[in-house]
Amino acid sequence: MNVKGALRPVRTLKAVYRLVPRVLKKPGLPPGTPVYTGRQKVERPKIAVFDYDEAHYEERVAERIEDCFPLVDTPAITWINIDGLHDAELITKLGEKLELHPLVVEDIVSVGQRPKLEDHEKHLFIVLRMLSYNGNEDHLESEQLSLILGRNYVVSFQEREGDAFDAIRERIRYLRGRVRKMGADYLAYALIDVVVDHYFVILEQLGDRIEALEAAVASEPTPELLREIHHVKREILLLRKSVWPLREVVSGLERSESRLITKATRVFVRDLYDHTVQVIETVEAVRDTVAGMTDLYLSAVSNRMNEIMKVLTIMATIFIPLTFLAGVYGMNFRYMPELEWRWGYPVALGLMFVAAMAMIVYFRRKRWF
Amino acid sequence: MNVKGALRPVRTLKAVYRLVPRVLKKPGLPPGTPVYTGRQKVERPKIAVFDYDEAHYEERVAERIEDCFPLVDTPAITWINIDGLHDAELITKLGEKLELHPLVVEDIVSVGQRPKLEDHEKHLFIVLRMLSYNGNEDHLESEQLSLILGRNYVVSFQEREGDAFDAIRERIRYLRGRVRKMGADYLAYALIDVVVDHYFVILEQLGDRIEALEAAVASEPTPELLREIHHVKREILLLRKSVWPLREVVSGLERSESRLITKATRVFVRDLYDHTVQVIETVEAVRDTVAGMTDLYLSAVSNRMNEIMKVLTIMATIFIPLTFLAGVYGMNFRYMPELEWRWGYPVALGLMFVAAMAMIVYFRRKRWF
Amino acid sequence: MNVKGALRPVRTLKAVYRLVPRVLKKPGLPPGTPVYTGRQKVERPKIAVFDYDEAHYEERVAERIEDCFPLVDTPAITWINIDGLHDAELITKLGEKLELHPLVVEDIVSVGQRPKLEDHEKHLFIVLRMLSYNGNEDHLESEQLSLILGRNYVVSFQEREGDAFDAIRERIRYLRGRVRKMGADYLAYALIDVVVDHYFVILEQLGDRIEALEAAVASEPTPELLREIHHVKREILLLRKSVWPLREVVSGLERSESRLITKATRVFVRDLYDHTVQVIETVEAVRDTVAGMTDLYLSAVSNRMNEIMKVLTIMATIFIPLTFLAGVYGMNFRYMPELEWRWGYPVALGLMFVAAMAMIVYFRRKRWF
Amino acid sequence: MNVKGALRPVRTLKAVYRLVPRVLKKPGLPPGTPVYTGRQKVERPKIAVFDYDEAHYEERVAERIEDCFPLVDTPAITWINIDGLHDAELITKLGEKLELHPLVVEDIVSVGQRPKLEDHEKHLFIVLRMLSYNGNEDHLESEQLSLILGRNYVVSFQEREGDAFDAIRERIRYLRGRVRKMGADYLAYALIDVVVDHYFVILEQLGDRIEALEAAVASEPTPELLREIHHVKREILLLRKSVWPLREVVSGLERSESRLITKATRVFVRDLYDHTVQVIETVEAVRDTVAGMTDLYLSAVSNRMNEIMKVLTIMATIFIPLTFLAGVYGMNFRYMPELEWRWGYPVALGLMFVAAMAMIVYFRRKRWF
Amino acid sequence: MNVKGALRPVRTLKAVYRLVPRVLKKPGLPPGTPVYTGRQKVERPKIAVFDYDEAHYEERVAERIEDCFPLVDTPAITWINIDGLHDAELITKLGEKLELHPLVVEDIVSVGQRPKLEDHEKHLFIVLRMLSYNGNEDHLESEQLSLILGRNYVVSFQEREGDAFDAIRERIRYLRGRVRKMGADYLAYALIDVVVDHYFVILEQLGDRIEALEAAVASEPTPELLREIHHVKREILLLRKSVWPLREVVSGLERSESRLITKATRVFVRDLYDHTVQVIETVEAVRDTVAGMTDLYLSAVSNRMNEIMKVLTIMATIFIPLTFLAGVYGMNFRYMPELEWRWGYPVALGLMFVAAMAMIVYFRRKRWF
Repeated sequence: MNVKGALRPVRTLKAVYRLVPRVLKKPGLPPGTPVYTGRQKVERPKIAVFDYDEAHYEERVAERIEDCFPLVDTPAITWINIDGLHDAELITKLGEKLELHPLVVEDIVSVGQRPKLEDHEKHLFIVLRMLSYNGNEDHLESEQLSLILGRNYVVSFQEREGDAFDAIRERIRYLRGRVRKMGADYLAYALIDVVVDHYFVILEQLGDRIEALEAAVASEPTPELLREIHHVKREILLLRKSVWPLREVVSGLERSESRLITKATRVFVRDLYDHTVQVIETVEAVRDTVAGMTDLYLSAVSNRMNEIMKVLTIMATIFIPLTFLAGVYGMNFRYMPELEWRWGYPVALGLMFVAAMAMIVYFRRKRWF
Repeated sequence: MNVKGALRPVRTLKAVYRLVPRVLKKPGLPPGTPVYTGRQKVERPKIAVFDYDEAHYEERVAERIEDCFPLVDTPAITWINIDGLHDAELITKLGEKLELHPLVVEDIVSVGQRPKLEDHEKHLFIVLRMLSYNGNEDHLESEQLSLILGRNYVVSFQEREGDAFDAIRERIRYLRGRVRKMGADYLAYALIDVVVDHYFVILEQLGDRIEALEAAVASEPTPELLREIHHVKREILLLRKSVWPLREVVSGLERSESRLITKATRVFVRDLYDHTVQVIETVEAVRDTVAGMTDLYLSAVSNRMNEIMKVLTIMATIFIPLTFLAGVYGMNFRYMPELEWRWGYPVALGLMFVAAMAMIVYFRRKRWF
Repeated sequence: MNVKGALRPVRTLKAVYRLVPRVLKKPGLPPGTPVYTGRQKVERPKIAVFDYDEAHYEERVAERIEDCFPLVDTPAITWINIDGLHDAELITKLGEKLELHPLVVEDIVSVGQRPKLEDHEKHLFIVLRMLSYNGNEDHLESEQLSLILGRNYVVSFQEREGDAFDAIRERIRYLRGRVRKMGADYLAYALIDVVVDHYFVILEQLGDRIEALEAAVASEPTPELLREIHHVKREILLLRKSVWPLREVVSGLERSESRLITKATRVFVRDLYDHTVQVIETVEAVRDTVAGMTDLYLSAVSNRMNEIMKVLTIMATIFIPLTFLAGVYGMNFRYMPELEWRWGYPVALGLMFVAAMAMIVYFRRKRWF
Repeated sequence: MNVKGALRPVRTLKAVYRLVPRVLKKPGLPPGTPVYTGRQKVERPKIAVFDYDEAHYEERVAERIEDCFPLVDTPAITWINIDGLHDAELITKLGEKLELHPLVVEDIVSVGQRPKLEDHEKHLFIVLRMLSYNGNEDHLESEQLSLILGRNYVVSFQEREGDAFDAIRERIRYLRGRVRKMGADYLAYALIDVVVDHYFVILEQLGDRIEALEAAVASEPTPELLREIHHVKREILLLRKSVWPLREVVSGLERSESRLITKATRVFVRDLYDHTVQVIETVEAVRDTVAGMTDLYLSAVSNRMNEIMKVLTIMATIFIPLTFLAGVYGMNFRYMPELEWRWGYPVALGLMFVAAMAMIVYFRRKRWF
Repeated sequence: MNVKGALRPVRTLKAVYRLVPRVLKKPGLPPGTPVYTGRQKVERPKIAVFDYDEAHYEERVAERIEDCFPLVDTPAITWINIDGLHDAELITKLGEKLELHPLVVEDIVSVGQRPKLEDHEKHLFIVLRMLSYNGNEDHLESEQLSLILGRNYVVSFQEREGDAFDAIRERIRYLRGRVRKMGADYLAYALIDVVVDHYFVILEQLGDRIEALEAAVASEPTPELLREIHHVKREILLLRKSVWPLREVVSGLERSESRLITKATRVFVRDLYDHTVQVIETVEAVRDTVAGMTDLYLSAVSNRMNEIMKVLTIMATIFIPLTFLAGVYGMNFRYMPELEWRWGYPVALGLMFVAAMAMIVYFRRKRWF
């Protein structure tokens, strides 16, 4: 694997992950006021509608939300997917049609929610976090996905257009799998399943980056790597904040007493729960590994430093006594008999050589280098 | 962001956060003795009264607490807000009117309480901690807010005057939101909601400071930053002590069997609970991040130190053998043939130059600098 | 605050806190053998008796334990306080009178017990730990307080005479508070309340010492401070061992189905429980702070060390090339034209000066000092 | 023990343990699609069938899975063992015969499952992880073992051929133990028991390697050892991921209300549970020990480094003042009376010797070496 | 306390505590096969029998286990103590007589069991770990004690002869305590009580060693101490593995619904439970203390190192500029006027002295030494 490739420079780290996100509730407003708290990501909301049962299916893009209302009342399964949440009026209208509680409407557009499941008798309200690496894999983005699951309809709210659900659309269009044979609850399950499956993709990418990091830390520890470790830690924090509450959501779905979840779907939800637990365990394992990497980095740094200091100190130490000897014979005493000897100079040089050798042998014996 | 601006000097740290606050119960006094344990922050208590139902509202400042008593008995919702708790007589009188237990009265004025919820059948007693940065954002202050929620009244006790509840006052005055349409329980909910929303504001400010700190630690680690990290850790400690018990309070309200909490309000309390959990999770994430910052600081310090030591040691090492050579040719032996050579001096200088170059090349090869 | 004053020398640390206390059960003896396991702290046990109801009270010091027995049978509340536990016969006699289980008698004199609550139908047996700083605040002492709460009597056992309960005696004598109006259960509550209140006093003192320590660590880290930190950690260990089980005791009292605890007292016990939780939280906060102090110390030490090393290394580095230059012109080559120059010496000195300046400027640029 | 032998070089670490395994579910596919997610390890699946009761037994290798179906319907216990999971058709056919849920079929071939137990009324579905060191003990491999336990049959699915179950085959063939006398549930128990017993073998090998590592770290700390520690940490991570969920599986079997588990077998399952807990405790103890080993390594490294630095610095320090003295008498002042003295040179040498001795004595006194 | 005495050299550490003990179940064998997994510690098993009721007692050593069987059937309490477990036939015979489940027989001789309690209706099966320091206090040994408690008999199995139960034998012989007045359940309680009491003895010895270690670490940190700390950590690990499950055993006994435990004994078991909790808390406190000792050691080492480096570096730094000065006046320039001055030499020496003094004063000011 190309280490350099996997370790792109961390541009504008601070701009990417705010430690405390700005998208939380605006203080002071009365509860139940629907105000979109994210950045507007699409020009105008896109309303995509699927209406299907085992025998037929119909697919279209609605101009106005009111166009979808007749479909909701038919016995066929209706799936309304809304991309873009800044149009408060649209959401409010839909909320009135589906008899959503004002707080539910607020939560749909207040996009900093943690995953949760609320049972409102006539419908279930589910909030999830979808994670994705943006184009250059540089950073992880978190988007809110809200689902309303009614008797025979599912409404999904996303902040922007995405291709995450294309596989499900294909399955509906071409009768793949069992989605056309089952109810709205299975559709909702399938949507959540796609989100959870995508966590595995992200974990794989993250795993690759971490292994590249480990290799880099071991071979050449630089301060940039430390920052990258810090960066990865934050991504894992983001993952944990998304998946831990998800477990409660899925186990809530499984144990829910709502008659909206049929027994046939419940088996699938249990399977989904297993996957969620597996995601959590993998996240925790990844987290443990990254936690140990700072130590690895520090010990790699100090190893290199020690090596430098050791070699240099040894060199210095060898020369210091020699310099002293040279200094002695540089003294200007009048009566220094050695200076007059014929072989004084060669003997002094030899003495120096022997002293240096003795020290080198001693250091070797002690296995200092 | 201006790092310098975000990192004002930490004046009088010790004076601000006592590790063990002084405001705890005075030992020896019989239980149930109402003694204000805080510092007196207002000259005399201010009693502000709201009396409203869907059709009308009335607002005034009462001179004496007794003036409010008739309002409590009317069917309209009465909200009495008392700023300043040092007047034991006032509180005691009110306590007698509302049939508060002596321990409740004591807890209202003994302002070091942790958040709690007590069900006294005729009323609920709720204690919260309000946090705020004082003017210069230098430190976090914690104030006790006590609420008595009765059938058709709410009494709130604050240590000082503040503008936290102005938004609610506006909503009552101008019929915004649904506060005028609902009961005293909704008013109590709205008050708590304001407190929780304010935690988000504080978390944002704290998040900004921490990110400024992180940038500063990475660019130039100074001991002041370490003290600042320590300071932030204490603020987070204060936050945790305020919000963890709050969760129990809010979940207690939600699950409470008290008939004082209507079903309509319970939905809002559940929403409040979600916010509380979100606050807690954010606090924990902030805490984890700050916990890792000491390591970041230490590694930044040792990185800088290592760099200095490395360059200096390398320089020293290069000159030590050269100095030895110079020493050799400074010896005063009578018979040193090199000294007599015509080109002795230039050759010696050249030798030194070559030795220095060889060492530099070696260090480069080893990637020591 | 006077740092020096708060940091008295740690005399004979080891003698004070045994990591594993010696006061545990003697192995081999049959269970239920009453043997005092502490050091004898008073010459002979002091038996102080209060007998009171709302209308009258009587107070005396009994010579023999048998003198108190008639009072126990009267309907008035009787409080027997015994200071000094080494007289096994006295305790055994009392145990027989009150029909205590032999294991209870053993636990009363085996003074290394952890706090606990036992319901023996006819009476409750409560064990607490009283903590106190001895005179010079040098170290924390832990003493066992055992309580027997019967229908209309309380017996309290202390290892030595103390003034902890004087406030309660005053309240009984002078009819302060509600102790004279309520039953034996309220008296027991009041005794425990005093113990818990005293923990706050100790926590304040501990908090002051820790803050003085923090200041000292930051300004001048010495190995003595590290030992002091270690010492404080042990005190906190002692505190934790006392207060964590206390919570179970108090919550056990609150939830107890014993008819010995009246409903009126239960409200006070709930309040006591809140205080206990507050003590625990404060202990944990103090513990967290102290846990971080070793890091603070180590980083302060290494900061100072780094500073020294840095300045010294810089100085050495500046002089090493200069010394080399001096060495070059100290060589004895016959043909060294510079030596003959008129301005050779000043030029050499100037060269040295320039080299030194260049290095100083370079170090400044790199912000090494 | 031969340290070198136990510490074979860590070849291609990354290839062995992917931090995030690739064998997880493929995103996008409809749930219930059986796709083998491992690497194909055998050319074609091997189907080994045992059919036995107390009186007789029959053993054969089936060519086609359909050949086994008649045996499943007989009252005798049938054990079908399938090695190799890449033939989706085979598994699907068997799934139809045994009325397995499509998700169960998917889980059997999707080999990254965590251990679990599912009760499908007519059969129990059990997933386990088998761990083994490959030939050269270099790394740990994890393989999925799935079991279907029906009224009178057990089907086991393995990824490759192995000899783990040979002992059970022997017991069936030669009537050893009680396997022939008991039902299919006992056979399933016996298979799980073999897996758990094998964990002990792996733990012993791991324990030996860790002890060899400890000895090596103490005697000669090299960076390779640090990598080896890191490697062992990952193996322990793998172990933990296998055994923690196993506990739930076994305790689920013990408490299961399924009539497939007879009372006689339940006693054995309880015993199995004890073993599982013991495995977990040993894994945790091993983990604690390895966690402390990084510290041991770092302190061993810094000990060696300190020793080197100390001796070298002492040597340098002794010679520096001597060199200064030599320098002084190398000065060229015209009027330096010592230089003219008859005994100037020997006295100077003596002075140097005395200074060196004094320093050595001083260092010794301070116990610096 | 004599530090040296308490810190005997750690001989053959590895031989003593295997990280993963060898005494676990042999893989492959059918469950329920009784194979002794320890080392044979006695030549032949010793069978000691007590038969007693309140009125009489009888004591003897049986040659064959069959000799004890008649006693078991009498109404008097029978205590059979077997030292030495390698004789599978003996254990099997006894197991048949007492109707033990084959797995119980296996557990008795498979001596790596963790403490547990099993209720087999006709008898309780209890496994404990007895810990003891061998003669020279050098290391802790762990031995398995198994108890079978029936209606009127107790059978105890030990791996070797020991004097742990002599105190109980004395009590039976000489009618001390209440053991002769109570049933077999009290005898079993008394045996467990002895084991728990012995933990206190071990904790005291361990506490002494740890305090000696602490003193030694502070005064003179040597690598041997670090190994000793490591050694103590393993001993604590062993203690924890013995006492944590013990708590479940004792609380299981207390809450057990078995009619084998009478109400009178249950009070004693509750007391035993308190002691067990106290042991656990002490072990945890000891563990916390030892966990902090590595830090203490490292900081002591670096303190000493820092001290050495500081003094030496300061000395070196003082002489380096002086040597430079000497070098300057050792230059051979023809025109160096100072060299010709009458007072040149003394002035130069004076200059050097002043420079050295100035540096010493500066260092003092900065409080570097």
